[in-house]
Amino acid sequence: MAGNTFGQLFRVTTFGESHGELIGVVIDGCPAGLAVDLGFVQSELDRRRPGQSKLTTSRNELDRVRFVSGLFEGRTTGTPLTALIINEDQRPDDYSHNGDAYRPSHADFTYEKKYGVRDHFGGGRSSARETAARVAAGAVAKLLLGEFNVAIRAYVSQVGRISMPHDAMLADKLFADKQFMDAFSETNITRCPDPGTAAKIIEFIEALKKDGDTTGGVVNGIIRGCPVGLGDPVFDKLHADLGKAMLSINAVKGFEYGSGFSGVSLRGSEHNDLFVRVGERTETSTNHSGGIQGGISNGMDIDFRVAFKPVATLLKSQTTLDRQGQTTVLPGRGRHDSCVVPRAVPIVEAMAAITIADHFLRNRGARL
Amino acid sequence: MAGNTFGQLFRVTTFGESHGELIGVVIDGCPAGLAVDLGFVQSELDRRRPGQSKLTTSRNELDRVRFVSGLFEGRTTGTPLTALIINEDQRPDDYSHNGDAYRPSHADFTYEKKYGVRDHFGGGRSSARETAARVAAGAVAKLLLGEFNVAIRAYVSQVGRISMPHDAMLADKLFADKQFMDAFSETNITRCPDPGTAAKIIEFIEALKKDGDTTGGVVNGIIRGCPVGLGDPVFDKLHADLGKAMLSINAVKGFEYGSGFSGVSLRGSEHNDLFVRVGERTETSTNHSGGIQGGISNGMDIDFRVAFKPVATLLKSQTTLDRQGQTTVLPGRGRHDSCVVPRAVPIVEAMAAITIADHFLRNRGARL
Amino acid sequence: MAGNTFGQLFRVTTFGESHGELIGVVIDGCPAGLAVDLGFVQSELDRRRPGQSKLTTSRNELDRVRFVSGLFEGRTTGTPLTALIINEDQRPDDYSHNGDAYRPSHADFTYEKKYGVRDHFGGGRSSARETAARVAAGAVAKLLLGEFNVAIRAYVSQVGRISMPHDAMLADKLFADKQFMDAFSETNITRCPDPGTAAKIIEFIEALKKDGDTTGGVVNGIIRGCPVGLGDPVFDKLHADLGKAMLSINAVKGFEYGSGFSGVSLRGSEHNDLFVRVGERTETSTNHSGGIQGGISNGMDIDFRVAFKPVATLLKSQTTLDRQGQTTVLPGRGRHDSCVVPRAVPIVEAMAAITIADHFLRNRGARL
Amino acid sequence: MAGNTFGQLFRVTTFGESHGELIGVVIDGCPAGLAVDLGFVQSELDRRRPGQSKLTTSRNELDRVRFVSGLFEGRTTGTPLTALIINEDQRPDDYSHNGDAYRPSHADFTYEKKYGVRDHFGGGRSSARETAARVAAGAVAKLLLGEFNVAIRAYVSQVGRISMPHDAMLADKLFADKQFMDAFSETNITRCPDPGTAAKIIEFIEALKKDGDTTGGVVNGIIRGCPVGLGDPVFDKLHADLGKAMLSINAVKGFEYGSGFSGVSLRGSEHNDLFVRVGERTETSTNHSGGIQGGISNGMDIDFRVAFKPVATLLKSQTTLDRQGQTTVLPGRGRHDSCVVPRAVPIVEAMAAITIADHFLRNRGARL
Repeated sequence: MAGNTFGQLFRVTTFGESHGELIGVVIDGCPAGLAVDLGFVQSELDRRRPGQSKLTTSRNELDRVRFVSGLFEGRTTGTPLTALIINEDQRPDDYSHNGDAYRPSHADFTYEKKYGVRDHFGGGRSSARETAARVAAGAVAKLLLGEFNVAIRAYVSQVGRISMPHDAMLADKLFADKQFMDAFSETNITRCPDPGTAAKIIEFIEALKKDGDTTGGVVNGIIRGCPVGLGDPVFDKLHADLGKAMLSINAVKGFEYGSGFSGVSLRGSEHNDLFVRVGERTETSTNHSGGIQGGISNGMDIDFRVAFKPVATLLKSQTTLDRQGQTTVLPGRGRHDSCVVPRAVPIVEAMAAITIADHFLRNRGARL
Repeated sequence: MAGNTFGQLFRVTTFGESHGELIGVVIDGCPAGLAVDLGFVQSELDRRRPGQSKLTTSRNELDRVRFVSGLFEGRTTGTPLTALIINEDQRPDDYSHNGDAYRPSHADFTYEKKYGVRDHFGGGRSSARETAARVAAGAVAKLLLGEFNVAIRAYVSQVGRISMPHDAMLADKLFADKQFMDAFSETNITRCPDPGTAAKIIEFIEALKKDGDTTGGVVNGIIRGCPVGLGDPVFDKLHADLGKAMLSINAVKGFEYGSGFSGVSLRGSEHNDLFVRVGERTETSTNHSGGIQGGISNGMDIDFRVAFKPVATLLKSQTTLDRQGQTTVLPGRGRHDSCVVPRAVPIVEAMAAITIADHFLRNRGARL
Repeated sequence: MAGNTFGQLFRVTTFGESHGELIGVVIDGCPAGLAVDLGFVQSELDRRRPGQSKLTTSRNELDRVRFVSGLFEGRTTGTPLTALIINEDQRPDDYSHNGDAYRPSHADFTYEKKYGVRDHFGGGRSSARETAARVAAGAVAKLLLGEFNVAIRAYVSQVGRISMPHDAMLADKLFADKQFMDAFSETNITRCPDPGTAAKIIEFIEALKKDGDTTGGVVNGIIRGCPVGLGDPVFDKLHADLGKAMLSINAVKGFEYGSGFSGVSLRGSEHNDLFVRVGERTETSTNHSGGIQGGISNGMDIDFRVAFKPVATLLKSQTTLDRQGQTTVLPGRGRHDSCVVPRAVPIVEAMAAITIADHFLRNRGARL
Repeated sequence: MAGNTFGQLFRVTTFGESHGELIGVVIDGCPAGLAVDLGFVQSELDRRRPGQSKLTTSRNELDRVRFVSGLFEGRTTGTPLTALIINEDQRPDDYSHNGDAYRPSHADFTYEKKYGVRDHFGGGRSSARETAARVAAGAVAKLLLGEFNVAIRAYVSQVGRISMPHDAMLADKLFADKQFMDAFSETNITRCPDPGTAAKIIEFIEALKKDGDTTGGVVNGIIRGCPVGLGDPVFDKLHADLGKAMLSINAVKGFEYGSGFSGVSLRGSEHNDLFVRVGERTETSTNHSGGIQGGISNGMDIDFRVAFKPVATLLKSQTTLDRQGQTTVLPGRGRHDSCVVPRAVPIVEAMAAITIADHFLRNRGARL
């Protein structure tokens, strides 16, 4: 299996290369009867698209999404949904000057060795452009989850060495404070919800651009309203599938949920989440579990963190090898982001939505 | 799908509850003709079994593994391999005193809500005992990979706040220095290869046991000799499947590979791995990529880190809720590990081996 | 994938060789809360077991089934159900006299060429014994379907050239007439519900046995009470999955449903099933569709026919080749059925039940 | 899973409705390096397209296929191949006059009950138009198999009650006699290779058209050059997957291979295929096995037969029910085939090619 499909029941298959004529996605298994707000789907793509702010690449792709199957009178019919996105700013010759040089920390070398061809089109699958198709599918998954009051928010918590301060009220602000949410998602080009940190991030990225250098960052995600019971106990634990989903995004190097790596240092008596009664609900007094216990959602917020490495394409020149094994100099390249994490936020949300939607449907078979 | 199967071509299905009569595993898709050294499989289980040292639980399970299908004259036949492990130290009544109380940070609550029954047997799938079956399958995967000179080593790098110092030569010692390896794997009850750190860990865990408390830790893994080309570029990136494999192990809260979360702080010009020629091989001068670029192995060591939370079962009593929503006190329990990471080492290796074996077979379809 | 698993949500994995110590099955995905009547499961195995009547092989295997996981207080828990069946009458030496000769119309030759080993154990997967594990899984599927009033009956309609006469009332008798059903299923060793035909079949098979020869036959199946809506429209049409299920049974050479091959000769105006109102139900006046339209069940009886070839193991000697390519004579063999179709009836029912149970669960995702 | 994907390693996913703007297919898992002759792919679609002769519907769809991903300089790159086919003759209003009436022996009723919407677009998935996408994928599979000298031919052997006489030399003519093959495939509008039978078929279909009636037929398929060893022994027997592939084609009611239903009447001593040496090859003196033994190909021709029911859309009016359960009259409809089997021939070949290509890749994992 060549790995272009994600999910068991809500199945997403993406196709198309960044340098080809279009990319697209087939969603198989979306239940019939779901109203698909095309404006919402497009708005999700707009959050991901290049050229959306001064922080991102100057490539300006409109990423117009068009559904060509699966909808009738605005609702899903049970047949596969297909969305296409034309590559409007396609400039294959842009890439020709790479010639035979393997770009450091890119997939050129591994692709060539795996598939036996030096193909710019094949390489186009490792481009972040493929994630536009995921965002389209994720938007449909969000609409499906929305019918059951499940909501997902991601945000930038770190860029380079700049981290936002801890804010115990952040989740409530993100999900419940409309004014905050709007300000956060529409006008904040960093996608970091803390204004002071956001300002520092902008300054840092602009300095990096001048240096021709790049940085990484961390995106946090929160899923609220997830019913108790999603996830399967052994290999398909909810966080295992969520982790795979995140690790499948370009440039991701790590995933943790709940207490994550820092939980290692706690004692069990500090780390255990005690059950408490809150009105009619069973909750936990802390949430080191990150909303998942034994691989199954427990109804608390699911929270997780995703590490993105620094962008590999630099404006600086680098030494590398070519196909003949000769040392060569790769010149610096323009038109790339110095930091992808602001644009990664909708991708993280999309993959989370697809994962939860899939387990939502899978859970329908749990009981008689 | 209820999630008890892992892998596409090298498919591992585990079954059985910790409190039932046996657990087991079916491996479907292992190529025919592989010699299966039963002594080696048993030795892998011995590395995982409870009661192996003063650091672990006093439960003493021998975990004798027996193959009941798939072998003929010591070799695989292409039919499903099935291994059974009898639960010799099964004491179901041990668990009856939990009664209706939900154990904090265990799966009791989520299982009951998902499946609609309060079952000790179902709960038995979330027990770490299930991982014995994975270790048996992982041993077969290791033998398969060994035929192609791929080797896997894991070790404990952190327990609680105690971390081992960085050792640039460690990988070479683990794979190439027989004396070091033997000392490490056979007699070192912490599975931490640094003697000074190991001593501190022993002291720390013994103190915790006296307190009735528990701790977490970090297990590092290294895969050496992986051919260039394993992994599929989009959803089934090699590190995405490896991450899912690790996150599916009980108590795991995070996964990172290569530079991981710390790589976020580097600049692209620091982080990029430059290609260099070493004899006939194309290598990289650094390995922030952790041996995987664009989701595909590049021939360098694959290295990753796995975070384990503190053990949830305490010797101390804890406040919790029962099924009726009433507050109750859960008494402390004995016979559990204060720290699982020494015993998690063979499980991490097993899941890594299964993942790599699967992609090894999948890669056979990459080219004409 | 080595093909030992069937189903997407109700997943059945069988393992074990006929000449090994046991065979078994793992059922993953059975909903929690189903009461499993172990007596019923055993009774299904008894209908399949060798030595049950004078018509079958003299091998006398009791086929005692034992569940070792997945049940708690008689009900499924949502974890994998595992059933084991010990091979009590295992006589590996029985098979040694085959030596190197390829048995005609058996799997010896193809197995050896595929897997590269001449193994009696591997060959044991192509033995009809593997189907005992399917019958155990099918019994669980029947219990699951029974909760939703879906019932399945199969019967022998032809042996050699002897066919039973058409009986328009047969389906009603099989599902609704308790006296008839009992007589049919308990005491009728041919599993052909027409007494006159049954008598001829007995006479024919006894004559064949004396000749050392064998015959084939046809098993018909009927599924009653299937809700409207099971099956997926394109590749996973209900009859496509049912056909695959039947064709996966040993010795099956053909499958047809509804009008089948004979429908080819009708005109469309004769063949179309007109919709009619029967009380509150929408039915069709005829049922050439065999209860499935566009790959989806329409609520009418699903009926199908399965062709079994003559048994390949003869009491007569046959000329064949050995591994060295030399012509050799394979002596006749005893202890095999002259006709398998009476014992194939519960296998056909089991595979039908597994297929319908799987689509029953899959259909839960069809709508919002 | 909604069933729009076929295959494990050579994975074909189709999408799009007959009344939408386009249909298409994603092929994931095709090995890199395969030269894709676009002219050949188009020629396969031309064999299936409506309006190709006086025997078929007067709808005239050109079915121009266009690949939008997966190719670089004419060869596959290992990334998903996507082919799109615009619906040029799309006339959605054509279908509006059906109104609320359920068409007899169509999928209208079952779709509506399953998905809860009366959608013309959803219904469009059950249209034979979807098979154009399969033919595109099948053409790629044929090219892949061609690299390994596997060839596939199908032909019409029966229409209504008119059957062609047995011709022992037919397979050799189809595969080896270029003049015969050309005459058969290019100019023969019936796709029946016997001229006398073809003439009778033309006469019969023309008479049916005048009557406003329809008929069914049988398509035979032969696969030559298949290596020994394809297929997996238990559930994924080669003929089981082939049968599912055929039964997934619209209007198919039955599948048999080798001796099929007629083999039932033979004695084992007549039916067994004796192994014989032919030069360096091990063959069988007869081929009742149809090239498959124990679910695995044995190197002989694989032959099978597929039954198609009479076309359900009539030019005559029919009585039916509407959504309100009221009896209504459905007027006759034009622009449909009276007999689909001539156009079904390339579809049967395509599904056979996809199935064999998938098992070809799967078999690469059979041995160490």
